[in-house]
Amino acid sequence: MVRWAPGVEDRLRAAALELFAELGFEQTTVAQLAARAGVTERTFYRYFTDKREVLFAGSERLQQEMVAAVRSAPSGSLVSELVPTALDALGQLFTAERRPYARRRQAVLQAQPALQERELLKLASLKAALAEAIAERDVDPERAALAAEVAVGVFSVSFGRWLAAEEDSDLVALQRAALAELPGLVHR
Amino acid sequence: MVRWAPGVEDRLRAAALELFAELGFEQTTVAQLAARAGVTERTFYRYFTDKREVLFAGSERLQQEMVAAVRSAPSGSLVSELVPTALDALGQLFTAERRPYARRRQAVLQAQPALQERELLKLASLKAALAEAIAERDVDPERAALAAEVAVGVFSVSFGRWLAAEEDSDLVALQRAALAELPGLVHR
Repeated sequence: MVRWAPGVEDRLRAAALELFAELGFEQTTVAQLAARAGVTERTFYRYFTDKREVLFAGSERLQQEMVAAVRSAPSGSLVSELVPTALDALGQLFTAERRPYARRRQAVLQAQPALQERELLKLASLKAALAEAIAERDVDPERAALAAEVAVGVFSVSFGRWLAAEEDSDLVALQRAALAELPGLVHR
Repeated sequence: MVRWAPGVEDRLRAAALELFAELGFEQTTVAQLAARAGVTERTFYRYFTDKREVLFAGSERLQQEMVAAVRSAPSGSLVSELVPTALDALGQLFTAERRPYARRRQAVLQAQPALQERELLKLASLKAALAEAIAERDVDPERAALAAEVAVGVFSVSFGRWLAAEEDSDLVALQRAALAELPGLVHR
């Protein structure tokens, strides 16, 4: 019995983007989402806890990859090395093929405060996970918290630039450029 | 007719802290809040749009003071001068007398995800307002957005340190120390 049919998750995600844009987020039901993706409601709930979560399932993976990268950095890594390590791991997940989906998702989010709130919660959770991972690498927890704030701030701004940019831009490169900009923003 | 009786807002805030801690946020009604503060429900709604907002009314003022400070900075100010200007304006609002309230408020927030969400929204709004104010000072908008991310990140972390610190710590000083820490977090 194939419970986790390949492609179902992607189909549900595409269906959510379509329906949230067509009907609005509040008006869309899980039954409609499931129908549009060609699955039952019961199948929907095997993948996602609620309709909001469909657009945020990817954030689990972001967090895992980022934490794994920090954990597997060479021993004795400085916090100034862990920050770009974490950012590169995030950036590599957003390949050029993901941009069209990411742009459409962004447009749906901008129209819907409830989705923006969930996005802020996910970013806060990413930040907390990163702070913890950095602190585990022998960094003072307060310093790790500040590093995580900076890293997630760089990610947010660079992600916005990436969404707006021409086709050939690369999130890893944008994040590195933003990191290099930082000292000039705080040093007189 | 004195509609805005002195102290009513503070009494409602104190009542909210007490009742959210005693009964939980969900269980507390506006009627109970008003009664505890010795006012009518109607009076409550002259001050706040909902029970959640009682703990966030101060954030309007934070935003106004911060934006005003950036706007009134000397002409030709660099972004590296506007960031500490904005932070100092924020920090000065949190005097030592405000700490006991701020600590109790934090404890209530930590127990209540719905309040944490509102806090994240307020921080996002603070960030957007700061980015706009900095961009109005002849700074490239993307650079202004990055500066605002950094500034609000420094505020968040420093505010946590301030809440946890001994009585004589000062938020302005904590923020300056965090700003000074930043370059070392990103430079190898």
